[in-house]
Amino acid sequence: MSERDVIRRIRELFPRTGDDAAVVGTQVITNDVLVENVDFTRDVPLRLVARKSLAINLSDIAAMGGRPQYAIVAIGSPEEALASTLIEELAVAARDHDVEIIGGDLSRAGEIFISITIIGEAAQPILRSGARRGDRIYLSRPIGGSAAGLTFLQRKTVGASYAERELIESAIRRHLEPEAEVALGLKLVGIATSCIDISDGLSTDLHHLCDASSVGAAIERERIPVFPDLQRSGPQLGINVRDAVLHGGEEYALLFTSSMRESELSTRVGRPVYAIGRIVEERGVRIDGEPLPPGGFDHFA
Amino acid sequence: MSERDVIRRIRELFPRTGDDAAVVGTQVITNDVLVENVDFTRDVPLRLVARKSLAINLSDIAAMGGRPQYAIVAIGSPEEALASTLIEELAVAARDHDVEIIGGDLSRAGEIFISITIIGEAAQPILRSGARRGDRIYLSRPIGGSAAGLTFLQRKTVGASYAERELIESAIRRHLEPEAEVALGLKLVGIATSCIDISDGLSTDLHHLCDASSVGAAIERERIPVFPDLQRSGPQLGINVRDAVLHGGEEYALLFTSSMRESELSTRVGRPVYAIGRIVEERGVRIDGEPLPPGGFDHFA
Repeated sequence: MSERDVIRRIRELFPRTGDDAAVVGTQVITNDVLVENVDFTRDVPLRLVARKSLAINLSDIAAMGGRPQYAIVAIGSPEEALASTLIEELAVAARDHDVEIIGGDLSRAGEIFISITIIGEAAQPILRSGARRGDRIYLSRPIGGSAAGLTFLQRKTVGASYAERELIESAIRRHLEPEAEVALGLKLVGIATSCIDISDGLSTDLHHLCDASSVGAAIERERIPVFPDLQRSGPQLGINVRDAVLHGGEEYALLFTSSMRESELSTRVGRPVYAIGRIVEERGVRIDGEPLPPGGFDHFA
Repeated sequence: MSERDVIRRIRELFPRTGDDAAVVGTQVITNDVLVENVDFTRDVPLRLVARKSLAINLSDIAAMGGRPQYAIVAIGSPEEALASTLIEELAVAARDHDVEIIGGDLSRAGEIFISITIIGEAAQPILRSGARRGDRIYLSRPIGGSAAGLTFLQRKTVGASYAERELIESAIRRHLEPEAEVALGLKLVGIATSCIDISDGLSTDLHHLCDASSVGAAIERERIPVFPDLQRSGPQLGINVRDAVLHGGEEYALLFTSSMRESELSTRVGRPVYAIGRIVEERGVRIDGEPLPPGGFDHFA
């Protein structure tokens, strides 16, 4: 049984779990966990782990077009001092995002984990299931940087040139300090027909969106915006750029659909967004006409 | 720095965390975590761990006089099969308590943890801070059984007589399968001036209640209802009954205050409840005139 099977079973048991966040009345509610040695190591400053644990939840609220309001934080830690550090950092990060931490729990544990639940308001939540044939498929920003950053971290890659060092630094920052697209999510209400955040990778998350909407997708490789300098300097640093872009997870860009044209939509939201293809009737995801199977991360694989 | 210091700091940072659950509008929201090798071991059937993880959260909602509605469940597990078992059992337990699991997360982890957030509704939440001088202090049921059950489990105690075996079995059941007092909590709205559930032990939780209400308490040892047969058969099985009753945690009985007399209150709620003393002006908790310091569990001690 793979994680995908487990998730399928979870959907059966708990029908409200099919979106980035659960919708209850005008509230959207989400939960994400970070676990030591799975999602981060002690090499990474706890300050960044704390901020990221909040950001990945904020991203789920963003994908629903919601405004984050409250957080509930559970922390497991082998040492009280580590828990204290996490708590202090989460307090700062929450304040920065106008989120109030209203409760939580603290426990001793063999390894650090942070489980955060965020409650937001969304009068008109954007679901995964609203994509319609003919809609354009959009990305909110260039992708591929997070996967590259993770690779650089794991391999302790050193750059030979200024450009390489710049790429390494910016990609690692994208991986460790992702920014949730909360402001954009709010602007997409009434504009986007469906939305998901890229946590598992473009290929996997586009499958999720299409499955939820009972449609297919046709995207074009050359229209997908690539993380700055990755196309040029990535290969010589050992990065498979195609894989990083198509399958790299933890991007927290928004992937959404709309009937609006790119120029019109960018004007409406006041920033660039990137049309990468169209929703089609035939199920499955295709890139430049070829099938694109989901290639994301399986926790139990 | 002890857990108490950390909790004090958490109260400073997050003012809404002072009660069993946070109050947001007419919602009450709580979170509790169970961690392997801290709160349970693999000796205990996962079915019971799953049910208990829900029960301890329901108990927090009960202590607020709330009606539990939604749960968000985060699970960490070294094996997918264990996670699946927990999910299936939580689905059953949630249904039994009329709670809908609306979301959550699943992660690989070195040891099992279950973090549950429950959202309930409470138009008039009962706070810890409402106890007034002269109020009677009540327990919802006899206590001491959970601590005894934990001791029996850890020492693998075997009973010599029928009475001893009965006590061992019922105490272990109380420890592993606590029942949240949700129905009683709902009935206490408008009757109880303050309420807390006994998770850390009577002595510690009575201190919490008194501190929140800026009052003191005077209780009588002989009025505290003791878990059936514990007084009689506990000592010969190695249980310090006084400690189990006064300081034993994980009882999930409700400890509350009301101006009503015991007979009147029992009639109103349709079941026995137990007056064990009075709220007094002078700060601190006393038992039979002697100071009763908090004696509960410190996660990091």
